[in-house]
Parts: sequence; structure tokens; C-alpha cells
Amino acid sequence: MTLLADLLSSVFERRYRRDPSHPTDSRPVQELVEALMGTAGETSGHALAQDILAGFGALDDAAKLDFFRHVARAMNIDPETVRSTLDAYERDPSKATYRAFATAAEPRRQELIRRLNSLPGATGALVRMRADLLRLGRGDPELEAFDLDFRHLFNSWFNRGFLVLRPISWESPAHILEKIIAYEAVHAIDSWDDLRRRLEPKDRRCFAFFHPSMPDEPLIFVEVALTRGIPGSVQGLLAEDRKAIASHDADTAVFYSISNCQAGLASISFGNSLIKQVAADLSANLPSLKTFVTLSPIPKLNTWLTGEGLEPKQDQMPALAAHYLLNAKASDGAPFDPVARFHLGNGAIVHALHADADISDKGRKQSGGVMVNYLYDLRKIGQNHEKFATAKTVAATAAVKTLAAGADLSKPQER
Amino acid sequence: MTLLADLLSSVFERRYRRDPSHPTDSRPVQELVEALMGTAGETSGHALAQDILAGFGALDDAAKLDFFRHVARAMNIDPETVRSTLDAYERDPSKATYRAFATAAEPRRQELIRRLNSLPGATGALVRMRADLLRLGRGDPELEAFDLDFRHLFNSWFNRGFLVLRPISWESPAHILEKIIAYEAVHAIDSWDDLRRRLEPKDRRCFAFFHPSMPDEPLIFVEVALTRGIPGSVQGLLAEDRKAIASHDADTAVFYSISNCQAGLASISFGNSLIKQVAADLSANLPSLKTFVTLSPIPKLNTWLTGEGLEPKQDQMPALAAHYLLNAKASDGAPFDPVARFHLGNGAIVHALHADADISDKGRKQSGGVMVNYLYDLRKIGQNHEKFATAKTVAATAAVKTLAAGADLSKPQER
Amino acid sequence: MTLLADLLSSVFERRYRRDPSHPTDSRPVQELVEALMGTAGETSGHALAQDILAGFGALDDAAKLDFFRHVARAMNIDPETVRSTLDAYERDPSKATYRAFATAAEPRRQELIRRLNSLPGATGALVRMRADLLRLGRGDPELEAFDLDFRHLFNSWFNRGFLVLRPISWESPAHILEKIIAYEAVHAIDSWDDLRRRLEPKDRRCFAFFHPSMPDEPLIFVEVALTRGIPGSVQGLLAEDRKAIASHDADTAVFYSISNCQAGLASISFGNSLIKQVAADLSANLPSLKTFVTLSPIPKLNTWLTGEGLEPKQDQMPALAAHYLLNAKASDGAPFDPVARFHLGNGAIVHALHADADISDKGRKQSGGVMVNYLYDLRKIGQNHEKFATAKTVAATAAVKTLAAGADLSKPQER
Amino acid sequence: MTLLADLLSSVFERRYRRDPSHPTDSRPVQELVEALMGTAGETSGHALAQDILAGFGALDDAAKLDFFRHVARAMNIDPETVRSTLDAYERDPSKATYRAFATAAEPRRQELIRRLNSLPGATGALVRMRADLLRLGRGDPELEAFDLDFRHLFNSWFNRGFLVLRPISWESPAHILEKIIAYEAVHAIDSWDDLRRRLEPKDRRCFAFFHPSMPDEPLIFVEVALTRGIPGSVQGLLAEDRKAIASHDADTAVFYSISNCQAGLASISFGNSLIKQVAADLSANLPSLKTFVTLSPIPKLNTWLTGEGLEPKQDQMPALAAHYLLNAKASDGAPFDPVARFHLGNGAIVHALHADADISDKGRKQSGGVMVNYLYDLRKIGQNHEKFATAKTVAATAAVKTLAAGADLSKPQER
Repeated sequence: MTLLADLLSSVFERRYRRDPSHPTDSRPVQELVEALMGTAGETSGHALAQDILAGFGALDDAAKLDFFRHVARAMNIDPETVRSTLDAYERDPSKATYRAFATAAEPRRQELIRRLNSLPGATGALVRMRADLLRLGRGDPELEAFDLDFRHLFNSWFNRGFLVLRPISWESPAHILEKIIAYEAVHAIDSWDDLRRRLEPKDRRCFAFFHPSMPDEPLIFVEVALTRGIPGSVQGLLAEDRKAIASHDADTAVFYSISNCQAGLASISFGNSLIKQVAADLSANLPSLKTFVTLSPIPKLNTWLTGEGLEPKQDQMPALAAHYLLNAKASDGAPFDPVARFHLGNGAIVHALHADADISDKGRKQSGGVMVNYLYDLRKIGQNHEKFATAKTVAATAAVKTLAAGADLSKPQER
Repeated sequence: MTLLADLLSSVFERRYRRDPSHPTDSRPVQELVEALMGTAGETSGHALAQDILAGFGALDDAAKLDFFRHVARAMNIDPETVRSTLDAYERDPSKATYRAFATAAEPRRQELIRRLNSLPGATGALVRMRADLLRLGRGDPELEAFDLDFRHLFNSWFNRGFLVLRPISWESPAHILEKIIAYEAVHAIDSWDDLRRRLEPKDRRCFAFFHPSMPDEPLIFVEVALTRGIPGSVQGLLAEDRKAIASHDADTAVFYSISNCQAGLASISFGNSLIKQVAADLSANLPSLKTFVTLSPIPKLNTWLTGEGLEPKQDQMPALAAHYLLNAKASDGAPFDPVARFHLGNGAIVHALHADADISDKGRKQSGGVMVNYLYDLRKIGQNHEKFATAKTVAATAAVKTLAAGADLSKPQER
Repeated sequence: MTLLADLLSSVFERRYRRDPSHPTDSRPVQELVEALMGTAGETSGHALAQDILAGFGALDDAAKLDFFRHVARAMNIDPETVRSTLDAYERDPSKATYRAFATAAEPRRQELIRRLNSLPGATGALVRMRADLLRLGRGDPELEAFDLDFRHLFNSWFNRGFLVLRPISWESPAHILEKIIAYEAVHAIDSWDDLRRRLEPKDRRCFAFFHPSMPDEPLIFVEVALTRGIPGSVQGLLAEDRKAIASHDADTAVFYSISNCQAGLASISFGNSLIKQVAADLSANLPSLKTFVTLSPIPKLNTWLTGEGLEPKQDQMPALAAHYLLNAKASDGAPFDPVARFHLGNGAIVHALHADADISDKGRKQSGGVMVNYLYDLRKIGQNHEKFATAKTVAATAAVKTLAAGADLSKPQER
Repeated sequence: MTLLADLLSSVFERRYRRDPSHPTDSRPVQELVEALMGTAGETSGHALAQDILAGFGALDDAAKLDFFRHVARAMNIDPETVRSTLDAYERDPSKATYRAFATAAEPRRQELIRRLNSLPGATGALVRMRADLLRLGRGDPELEAFDLDFRHLFNSWFNRGFLVLRPISWESPAHILEKIIAYEAVHAIDSWDDLRRRLEPKDRRCFAFFHPSMPDEPLIFVEVALTRGIPGSVQGLLAEDRKAIASHDADTAVFYSISNCQAGLASISFGNSLIKQVAADLSANLPSLKTFVTLSPIPKLNTWLTGEGLEPKQDQMPALAAHYLLNAKASDGAPFDPVARFHLGNGAIVHALHADADISDKGRKQSGGVMVNYLYDLRKIGQNHEKFATAKTVAATAAVKTLAAGADLSKPQER
């Protein structure tokens, strides 16, 4: 084999795989966990980790819940030990006393997750384990606390510095592309032909973040259309019979779909980095691009209108949408709309509203077909972001503000 | 560019690089750190992280020490907050109270390290920062405690599951090979010709662990000779005029040199994994290999003999060495010899002693030229390891035990 | 960009692409050809080659035919020059006289093809040009002679030594896979799901030959099923609900489909090399494989039976098929059946016949559903091949010979 | 193994390797050749080709010469057959008669070379075989004629369209870099440190052509310095203590060394393509580059001066060199200087002369230390080339012409 092949075959070490020569340990998963934590050495550790991950994967939901409850409790912190080691550290701050405190203050279940991850390829299995924990543990204080340990470690492991950005194209491997079809969450991809229309034309791009330990699993991806001018409808953007333009003729990059792929990475935020990195890369490679903008759904507009008792009259929708984006707030003072929260949090501004921009059933149901462009001005996203982060200021163009100001907020019964 | 090129150029995102378009923030590094911890957003965070890492790299040792002291103190835990959040959690264990406790119990300097690492390519700079901390902070309780935070994070980031094993050959990139020359710690490599003699012959192998975020930096590497029979001297193994044998004619793989490359990864143990992985891979690819063995120095033999007041008579050396390896203990009960500690801890056994096995100045000075084979029996390393870990049992062949039993331990003055 | 990316982006230089900055030369293609042959230098040569290939591609069939006729005549050999240079060489054999003869004896249209190919990526365009020549020139002596020049050069360029064998899997790029779907000639692939069933299971393999100058175009591919025992029907092999077996449990590799992809490479034979290479590679990687066999159609069986006035009675079909494979000959003495000719020419033997083995419309129509296994015994294909090549001997098992001997060859009217 | 590894391991199929399981055929090479030509099938052909190439490689020079003589004669054209097939073709031009003529007019030794090349990895062995033929056959009319067959095939196989351009850097594989050291023909590379100085600085580049069937063997390479302004000495360019400049600060790319690597590819011209491709690529990637120029030796200046009886006075050397480059002609009317012939043939012009530009022993001996810049103006190389090719016009700047006009051509005895 060549050097290159050698390099690559080891770079992408493969997903979790049971060593077939290793006899399965048939003890219950809980016992295996105790054994793994007790083992001082890696040798038996690997075999145990294999058995735990395989054993867990084969459990039904009730047994998984038992497992989570057991680990959450049996491997929690011991407050008395925390207190005594803290006292000792305060009396005599040293390497030894600090180590004792740090060990006591971190629940042993974090070390369990790290030991399971020492098996090459186990990271994906742990992401799936957390997906189960989130699904089964919702509302349970112990399990929600346990999830914070996963989240703490995943924030460290899925740090931006460890992620790699890969373009996704029609030349990408089919087993990756089928995941793009499966994970697209905004505008469903019907078929391989539909996928090709989004990837192959010279005015289309797609990018995904990957983690080196999960090379076959995109974490999040964004679909981009290169256009002349800012588009006002997704139908036009995705029309089957449209003519592609040359990429160097485009002046605008439209982020028209962003999809998270891994339920087990909820609350681990990469979307922010992804959009900025993609905008910066496109800008460097295609100097003709001047405008970076989304064409985004407004998923909670109708929910909010209904809650407010407002009547969504079709010709009033853009103005109501503008009002909603600027003024509708959640209990924490941030925008009510989750997509608005995401893009405004990234430092984008509300740039324009469009009626009849998504005439699919989903689009009509969510927002009467209205969509919004959030504009990413690379020179201003920093200051926009800071204002939003500190003062919850929603940045918008004058035109959007004017539109919002003209919204008819009278309620049906009032007329 | 092709798909493959696209993939690869992003897979190996490059080491830490300042964005030249970004104006340097000239505030002192300490102030930049405060700004980084205060910023809610990634945008300004990246620029700040760049400035901090570049600024730190440009400091002299005194200023680096100031920086470490400042961070160690200003970003330490606050015992009162730990106690109050712990009390709250104990009264009402919930996601919110657990999160408050976990945040309080972890010093903010850990979060600082994570934020610096969110810059692509920063991991290597952080490893170098820890090397400085280890060097400058030795003996200082605060700084040794601070180092435990680095170590805690590095243990998580340099987890075996994230490392990739790459063969190193004469077809490897020159900028990697020059690091192999520089880092070889056991038997120095004199020149590129010397390096070629260790890599190119068909009966030689070399393997290194890499981390995906530091693709140009080997972390640890092992050099392997494929032989017929177990060799008894390093001169024979590395003779310039020796004849290479076909790899499928070899029955033995000799690990004759293991070198750690990164001072900043001290105490993050990969050697164990490396040897076992390499032995397993070689065994799978070359079924004729039956024996996996080291040819190791005994670096502290003469130190110990001198300390014991024993006279190192040349013809007695193998017996004295056997006695030393089996019986000389450090204060913690583990073997006195660091190399013995490493291999016995991995589950190897003391297999044979050889006089005149390393007749270099270094070899004579350390151990009178005696070297030792540690044998890795893949079927037994698990149980050997457990016995060593639990009972400090030193496993050895009957021949070695007999040799040790015959050692003349009379002291000069006694005669 | 990294070393690896650099390497790869240059390894796979891309298919024929017009340089957009180069103003198109609007002269007729014939004139451009004269200009190309007259130019001494590469600089204008590249631009002319671009214009010729682009210009030719835009012609309609009538104009292409004109172009071929023009080139065939205007760039043919000149018999008088051949004779006079041959005389001169015979009188005084030297480098100069040999060169003059060799130049005269090779029609200039060969040099034209080579000059067109000096444009990076032009090889694929030349293969398409030959496809046009074969299609349009059939039956025309001048154009059939011209095609021999293409064939002569292609035999040299598509020499086995220049081809690369690549596995095709579900992880292959989608733009390659869509060509596999398009080119499958034996058992049509209906959809991407159907394709996945042929590539993804652990007991399926696919391999293709590529030429480095046409990296996106498979030249020929073979689909392989790993089985226990020799299968007797393609329905069983491709059943949607079948259970895959572990590859190391298989004892047999079944080549159940071989498809040529490029009409312009007709008569350039790679199938022979492909099967032997794949058999050798599989044998090296999966030592449990003992038998290499095809499951092949008998495409001309019913044509022959009809021509012979034989009545294809269903229960007689295997025996008639055996008789046909052993005894039906074309005018050159080789087997009448083209698939038989191919495999027997490779050194395979007729191993077994199966009724109801392909119950598709196509299978029933060609051969009443009968299929045949040709067996590749790697130790015997050399001698089988030599006997076939020299004496047209059809090798078969005793069972097949017995079956053939029992065929009822009575004709309807005879009864 | 991953897709990528699979792809790569097959893309770079490896150099010629004897199949160890295949028993060597010990007949003389000449007999093996007959057997290879007689064999109809690939199977035994591969084994024979292996034995022929291995057998030839083991011959001494006398036996190689015998082999070449035998093949040159025994596999030459048969004039009578050429004549009779030509007559038949003239009487009745058809596919069959043309094929018979074409077969007769091509000596069988060409088919021999093609059959040897059907063995994967054999191309490099054939290039070495031609190097032997060139070396041993010099002056022998039969062997020089035979060489034209190699040259004819190599011109087809090493067509620009089949070559790949790769950057060579300090990150290239060591086994490639050691060949760069070995093959550098203009300014010798002393050591690996010297090599690093030519590859690693950010203002240095190196590019080589490779053939996909000889992936470990550069065919030709060029070393490039990025500079501000046109340099006037090679000492300055290669000074150990010079300061590198940022690549985007450079306005000039200096091709200061071009080396052919394969003696067996003599007269197969790639240098022309290499310089133009590299200039075009650099221009696209570094828009600040405005000037593409060589810093070239004048290897035959002193030879010519001596032959002319001119006295090379040191202060007269630049003027004499200018005169020489413009006016000294070989018997065919082209420039006497081989390097001038190469660059002027590419369409470059003589731009400037520099005294004391190469003060090495070699530089002093060849040209009294004078060097010359040939300028590649990408917009004008086409027309320069045509004028040179058709009228042998030597293009030069006005300053060079003026300098040449002032050369003191008086001979010693005349004064």
C-alpha cells in the first residue's frame, strides 16, 4: 500500500466495531460499568468498553432508562467528600489537595464517558447514547443533571478547533449523501434527482462540519445558492427548470437551509461557526460575492399570531411578520422566533420580508408563506452580535422597521 | 479542485496561523484574557484568542510566569460559591442547581483553555503553553495545581479514541521525518542517511500517534526491527552493513526505541496504547511474527548500584541488572527503573538480560552496556498488568529469576 | 493547501475544459486541423486542439461524417512516399532512412490524434470521437481503415499497464455511481436503492478499471457476489429480502455481471484482465474463497436454436444449452455465443447449466431462462487459454459434456 | 479501509514487482521474447514479461547489447511484406488490406515494447531499458533505428495529456526528495539542509511532471524563486542568510534551474510544457506576479569563444555573451547554445546579461560567470515561438542588442 493510502486509512479510523475475536462478557451493563471504572489498565478496559456500548445498544428503552438512573445515582458526586476536600484545599492549597478536590467535585460518570470514548470509534456511539438520554430523561431532574455531564464533555470534544469543514458535492460519497437526504430539515429532499439539483449546478454549494472521530457522520450542514440579487422565494430558488448561472457571475450567496444532523449533539452549537466560516471561504474564493444572506422560514409566526388573537390576513402577513420579528419576545427577552434568535445571535440583521415565498403546505402553515432574509455583513456581525448579546437589540433595516410599524395589530373582536 | 483535494484540504486544517487582516490588539495578555472570558460571542472570541496565543508566545519567561500566576489566581475556584451551590444542589437536586455547582467547582481557567482551543489549529499552541507552565511552575503549588487543569483537559482531548496511528516510512513527508530525527530520545539519529537505514529496509517499521488537530506533529513514536530470534545487542540491530531480511521471514518484532515528542503532553500516557496497537497490527499483517519484545535500556542501573554502594563488576552486570529489575523499588513500591515501570505496567515481563548490548558511551554510563528484553505476550498482558497494578508483582522468566538469585551483592568494604 | 491536497489536485487533472479566456477560432474544423498539424509549437497547438474538439462536438452527424471522410483521405499514407523511403532504407539502413520510412508509413491522422491528446483531459473527448466514427463509419472501407488508427493508438494508451483498478462501493462518489447505474448492461439497475443492494452488503463487491486521464469515467466494471456454493439463479442472488453473509464465510466469488462502459473503446479488451485481477485480489484478501465462477447469460441460444430449426422445449433447455455451448460455432471456428467466446478465451471452463436461472423477460427471450457458470480455476486458466487460442478447444466438466450428449436434437418436422 | 484509501492505493499502482509465487523461467531472454510474442493470451504474457524485464535487468552490458541487436534484427520490418501489403491496399483499400499493411509496416519490436508494458508498473523498467539502448547503441545504425521505435511509443505514452504536474515541497515524501537532490543538474544540492533552503521558504517553489505509471519518479522539475525585481546572480538567490519575502510581495518568478531526470526519456520534450504550465499556475494564484524570467547558465559560451579564437576578457564577457546568444549558430541555423535553443524555442526572449552571476567553478568555466535572463511574456510567447520556429529569429531586448553590437570581436593575434 502507498504512503497516501496508509495515511488515509489511519486518519479515518473507522466507527465503532466489535473485535470479533473477543468473547462477549455477558454480565449486565451496570456490572460492566463498575468493572470498567475499577480497571487500572487499558487492556481489559477496551474489551469492557466494547461490551458496554454493544450491551447498551441492545437494551430496550425501559432498560436504558434503568441504566441511566443507575449511573446517574451511583456515579454522582458525594457532597461530604466535596466539602472535606474543599476544606483541605483551602487550608493548604497544593497540587495534592487540589487534585483531591477536583476529583471529588466531578461526578464519576464523567470519567465513565471518557473511558468509554478511549475505544477508537466510540464517539458516535456516545452521541447516540446521549440522544437516548435526552429522549428518555426529559423532565427527570437526576437525568437532566446527568445530561449536563455529557454536554460538558461534548462541548469540549466538539470544540470548533476540532471540527473540519468539508464541501459536500455530487462527487461526495453516496453514504454521506444519503445522510444529507435524511437529515435535511428545512426543505425536504425528495429523491436522488432532487439532491443532484441542489449539489451539481455550478451555482450551488453545500458545506458540512465533521468530527475526525465520526468521519461518516455530518454534524450540521448548510445549503447555499449563488444568485444575482437577493431572492424572494424558495420556489424560484429550487425550480426544476431554472438556468444555473456561472459562479463568478453571482453577487449574492443565499444560505437557504441549515440542518442539524445529530440529536445527541443538541445544545452543542456549531451553526454560528458554520455560517461564518462558509461566508468567509466563499468570499475568499469568489470575490464577486458581495452579499451573504439567508432565505429563512419564520416557523413560529402563526403560532404567535394565534396566541395573540391576531388575525393573519394574507395581505397583512409581511407587515405582521416584520412586527413579530422585531417585537415578539420569549420570557428571557430574546426573540420569540427560534430561527430569528439563531441568526440575530450570530450578528445578522433582519433585511427583508417576502410574501408567497414558501408556498408549500409547511410554509403556509407556519407563516402564511412569508419568509425573511437575514443579512450577514461580515464587517458588522461582531458589533451586531455584541449588542444582541448584551442588550437583546434586534437589528433591522429601515425598510423592515417601517413595514413593522405599519402592521395592523387590531384583533378580530375589536373590529 | 477535486472532491478528494477538497476533502483533504479541510481534513487537515492547518496549525495556528494569525489572520493577517486582523489588527492586533495590543493590550496586555492578561487583559485580553478577561475580554475573552467576557465575550459572549465567537466572532470577537477568535480574534482575541489569536492575540492571546500570539502575545503569550512573544513573552519572555518572567512575563510568562506572571501570566501563569495571574491566571492561576484570578481564575481559581471560589470556595464560598462552591459551598453555597453545593448546599443548594443537595437541598434540591435539579438541572439548574447541578449546573450552578458544576460551574462553581470548575476553575474558570479551564474554560479559558477551552475557549483558546476553539480557534482552529490552537491545540499545538496550548501544548507548547503547558510545556512552559511545567518548566516554569515546577515546585510552585499554585502553578502545579493550575497544571492539573491542563492535564485534565488534555487527558480528555488526547483520549486514545481521538488519536490516529500512522506508519512512518521513507515515503513520509520530510517535515515529519525531520521531527523524528529531532525527537528520537533513545538511540540518536545522526543524519538523514541514518534515518533512512531505520525506515527504508524491508525489515524495519516505525509508527507514530498523531492528533487530528496537530497533523504535522508526531506525539510519540516507536521504532521496530523485524528479526529472526530475539536480538541481544543494539549494535547488531543498527549495524550499517547488516543484510535486511524479508518481512515474512521474521518471527520477532523488536521495539527498540520509544520516544515521546511533546514536553507539553507529559503525564498524558499513550505509550501503552501505541505498543499494543502496533503489536496487534503487525501480528495481523505478518502472521509469521510470533514474538513481540523490546530491546530496552536500563537507565538507572548504575545510579542505583552506586546508591547501594555496590560495585559494578563487569562480568557481574547481567546478574546485578536482573536483581535490580526484580527487587529495586521506588518509595511507592513500584520498580525503581522508569523503563521497567513502563513496560511492566503495560503487562510485559522481564525476558532476558544481555551484556555488552549497548556499547555507546551512554549505554556504558547508564548500565555498563547491559540491556533487557521485555516480552509482550499478547495473550497474557492483561493478567500481568492486573497483577502488577494491584500487587506490584514483577513478572519475569525463570532464567531471569535464577540469574538474579545468583547476583553477588557483597559490597566493596565487605570484602 | 496541504501536501496531500496538492498531490491529489494534480493527480486527477480534470476532464477536457475550454479555457474561457481563449477566443474561439471560428474557422471550420478541417482548417483548424491543418493549422494544428502545421504548428511547430505547443502554445498555439493547445488552443487549436481545444477549438477542434469543441468544434467537432458541436457538429451534427452529417458534418461529423464529412470531417471523418476529409481526415481519412487527406491524412492517409502516400504509397509512393512509402515505397521510395522503403527503398532508401533498404539500400542504407540508418536512423535517418528508418525515420523517413516510419514517418511515411504511418498516416498523418495518427499524429493528429496524438496532438489532440496533448491537451490535458482530451482523452475522453477522443474516446467519444471514436464512438462517433464507429457509429457513422460502419461499412465504409475508408472510415473502417481510419478507425484502425484510433484502435492502434487506444490499444497503446489503454494498455493494462496504464489502467488502475478501483473498488466501487456505496462509499464511492455519486457521480461515479450514477454511471454504474447507467452502464450496467446485463441486469439493469432500477434505482439508487437497487444500486445500494448491489454494493453495500458485506457479501457484495464491485470493481472497475479507470484510466488516469479519465478519472470520472469507469471503462469496464464487474459485479461480484460472495456466496456459499455456486448459485443457480440470478433471482436468488439479487433477491431484495436475502440475508447477507459474512465475507469470510463465503467460499465462492460469483462474477454475475460485466459491463463495458465506453462505446469508443470497442475492441480494446480489458475484461480479461479485469476478471483475473479481481479474482487474484479477492483470493489474496479472503483466503476462504476457493471457487471463482460466473453466472452468465447465454444471449444467442434461442437465436441459434431458431436458426437450426430446433424446437426449444422447456425441459430440454439445459441439455440444448450445453450442446450449444460445446458445439455451436461461428464461421471462424470459435463458439457462436459471444459470452462463451469471452470466458473460454480467458481460460475459463463451462462448469454447469441451470434452468429457470433468469426468469426476467430478457432472460426468457434469450435462452428460455437458462444460465451458465463459467469456472475460473486460477491454476488452469493459462493452459485452458492456450488450448482454446490454438485449437479452439472448449473446456467443460464431465457433467456438462454428459448433459450435452443427451440433448434431443430432433427437429419438429422430423417427428 | 476507507473509500479514499481504496482509491489511492489503486491510483498509484506500484512499480514493477516480481510476483514471488511465480517460478522464474530460466530460458535466455531472447527465447522469452519469442514466447511473449507468440503467446495469444495475457495470462502467460504477464509471467513472461516479468521474466524478460527481470532477466534483462540482470544482464551485463555485453549481453544487453546482444539482446538489443537480436531484437533490432529479428523483429524488424520485412520490406517484401511491406511492399506486397501496400500493393494490395492500393488495389483495394479496405479495413483488411489496411490492417495488413499497418501490421507489416510497423516492426514487431514495437509490439514487443507494448506487450512488456502491459505488466502493471513496467513503464519505468522500459524507460531504463531505453537508457541502456541509448548508451550502448550510440553510433550503431541498427540500434539507433531501434531507438526510434522506443521514442515513437514514448512520445505517445508521455504525451502532455497524460502527465501530471505536482508541487514539490518540504512536505513531499523523502523518497521523492532524495531524487530531486540526485537529479538537480544545474546548481548542485549539497545536503538535505541545502534542499530545505530551496523548498521550505515562503518565496520558493518547485514543480515536477510525473507519469501516473511511475508515481515515484519525477520526469523533469523546475525550481522557482519569487523575488522583487529580476535577480542578477545565483549567489544572491541561494545565499544561506538571505531573508525570505512574503509570496504576495513578489513581482517576479525566476526559473533558476530545470533538470531532466530520466536518461531514458531523452528527446521526449516536456520542459516547454512545464515552464508554461508553472507560469500560468503561479500567475493565477499570485496575481502580484508580473514577470516570469529565468536565470540561466550559458553552458557553451567559452567553448564557442575558444573555437572562434576569441579572447574572453572578463570585462568584455557580457557583451561577448550577448553577441554569442544572438549570432552564434549551429549547423542547422538554430542557436549554438543548447539552453538558448530551449528557451527561445519556447517563445522566450533574451532579456539581460549579468557578469559575475555564477561564480562557482562550473559557472566560471562555462561562461566566465556570466548568466542570462530569458523572459517569458505569456502574451507573446506564441508569436515569438512561431517566428523562431519558422525563421530562427532570436528575440531580444533593445538593450541586449545594443550590448551585443558593442562586443569586441577582435582576435588576440589581430591586435
